[in-house]
Amino acid sequence: MKCARCKEKAFEKFRGRYYCTNCFIKKYEEAVKSTIKRYKMIKEGEKILAALSGGKDSVAMLSVLSRFGFDLEALHIDLGIGDYSRKSLEISNKIAEILNVELNVVSLKSYGFTVDDVKKKECSVCGNAKRYLMNRFARENGFDVIATGHCAEDILSNFFKNLYSGNVEWSEKQKPRIEGFDKIVTRIRPLYEMSERENLLYVMARDLPFLYEECPKAPSTRWKEIIYDIERKVPNFKINCLRTLARERERKLEDYRYCKVCGEITTTEICQFCRNVMKFRNPQLR
Amino acid sequence: MKCARCKEKAFEKFRGRYYCTNCFIKKYEEAVKSTIKRYKMIKEGEKILAALSGGKDSVAMLSVLSRFGFDLEALHIDLGIGDYSRKSLEISNKIAEILNVELNVVSLKSYGFTVDDVKKKECSVCGNAKRYLMNRFARENGFDVIATGHCAEDILSNFFKNLYSGNVEWSEKQKPRIEGFDKIVTRIRPLYEMSERENLLYVMARDLPFLYEECPKAPSTRWKEIIYDIERKVPNFKINCLRTLARERERKLEDYRYCKVCGEITTTEICQFCRNVMKFRNPQLR
Repeated sequence: MKCARCKEKAFEKFRGRYYCTNCFIKKYEEAVKSTIKRYKMIKEGEKILAALSGGKDSVAMLSVLSRFGFDLEALHIDLGIGDYSRKSLEISNKIAEILNVELNVVSLKSYGFTVDDVKKKECSVCGNAKRYLMNRFARENGFDVIATGHCAEDILSNFFKNLYSGNVEWSEKQKPRIEGFDKIVTRIRPLYEMSERENLLYVMARDLPFLYEECPKAPSTRWKEIIYDIERKVPNFKINCLRTLARERERKLEDYRYCKVCGEITTTEICQFCRNVMKFRNPQLR
Repeated sequence: MKCARCKEKAFEKFRGRYYCTNCFIKKYEEAVKSTIKRYKMIKEGEKILAALSGGKDSVAMLSVLSRFGFDLEALHIDLGIGDYSRKSLEISNKIAEILNVELNVVSLKSYGFTVDDVKKKECSVCGNAKRYLMNRFARENGFDVIATGHCAEDILSNFFKNLYSGNVEWSEKQKPRIEGFDKIVTRIRPLYEMSERENLLYVMARDLPFLYEECPKAPSTRWKEIIYDIERKVPNFKINCLRTLARERERKLEDYRYCKVCGEITTTEICQFCRNVMKFRNPQLR
């Protein structure tokens, strides 16, 4: 197999054609750039905080953003999940060094608990903590947008999960750019249209280190498998659905207030993060 | 197998337990009644126009509504699809007689075209014509709500189809009761939570005639198959998703106006039905 662009030895397929490593990298980065443009994800002069876990998706995202020359720093959140978190932090440090991006680290431990104190089926605690800490760090440090490494399958499986579990905000949150308001910082998803497979091949092509290991607390992949299955039966299912979701009109959050404990935005008296802190607080960490 | 309620010979399973014919009918009708209640589908004194095609779903719906003693008439729309439409009308007449419900018939032919003039892939023409004629007939004849026989799989496959094809109103219309406004009459779906299988077994249990034949212009069933497939993998997928959709907040249609040709409500200068009439008009029908 030869590269469709330069006739060098092919590395892998990207959207129907084979490319060599260099051309694969080029095509992938062009695709991310056009996704960012299509959805007007980044406005001129915006300072970006990129969430970096050390997995293939966040590594791919940080790498692409750093090569586009944006005003950029990274944030790693240490969730305290034993060996997994130790390795995550190690790789995040390595990646930040390779890409020459400043890395910030926030540790959940400083709030008195870690995700190790949380049962596997309470996995929403982890997502809540990440969103809370990212938002607070970004705002308190003058960032305009938070970039996360959500890929196409992440967005769609979140969508299905919310639809299935009756989450009221099931569709609004699955957008490439969600405008901030009040204390909430704008969030963007530069890899909105990229698949997991494409992200993996990109970090491999660029020979970047990444954490291959799955988080031991990771939720089941059943929704992702369902999405792959539908895509096999209905080609372009993923991309078409994502573009519909992206076009969805936004609705305003009508009733928000400030958490009595920490002052962050919430719809309840005490925000979910503070309720989790109270529930899972571990005296040994104090 | 014995009936779980009366120990008579079992007929079929309904939501996990076997019932005899009579108890199956009872359980099914109770389920429809509780769906109508749950979603406050019918308000006191409302006059209902039930759409009757003659297929299993619409026959089941009309039968249940007639047994609940609502103020009720039926409407059959003759789309002019050759032999299929002839049989549909015949069965609709029979059903109306058996159930002692007044049947109204509107013919698409009187507008100068039939669905026979339309290519199979233009199947949205048929749905548009049905909605248009139902709405107009209901309003002009003083009905408060239009009831259609959409079952759980219909709602979900419409939802998926819209999500896939980028239809802007992809989620709002998949509700058990859609309030009318201006010239639009309220629509309800009494079988919102009933499956095709349950509807079929009900009409069989009641020994009612129905048109088994599929419409020759019927769209592919691939979305329904996908929904069955997901339900096998994730039990309660259908019911959970339907309840999420039902809870979705409504958004107002912001820019509507009146069609320059017929005066019905539309978002464009000339409504889709009138554009279809112009496109497919068949001089032989005039």
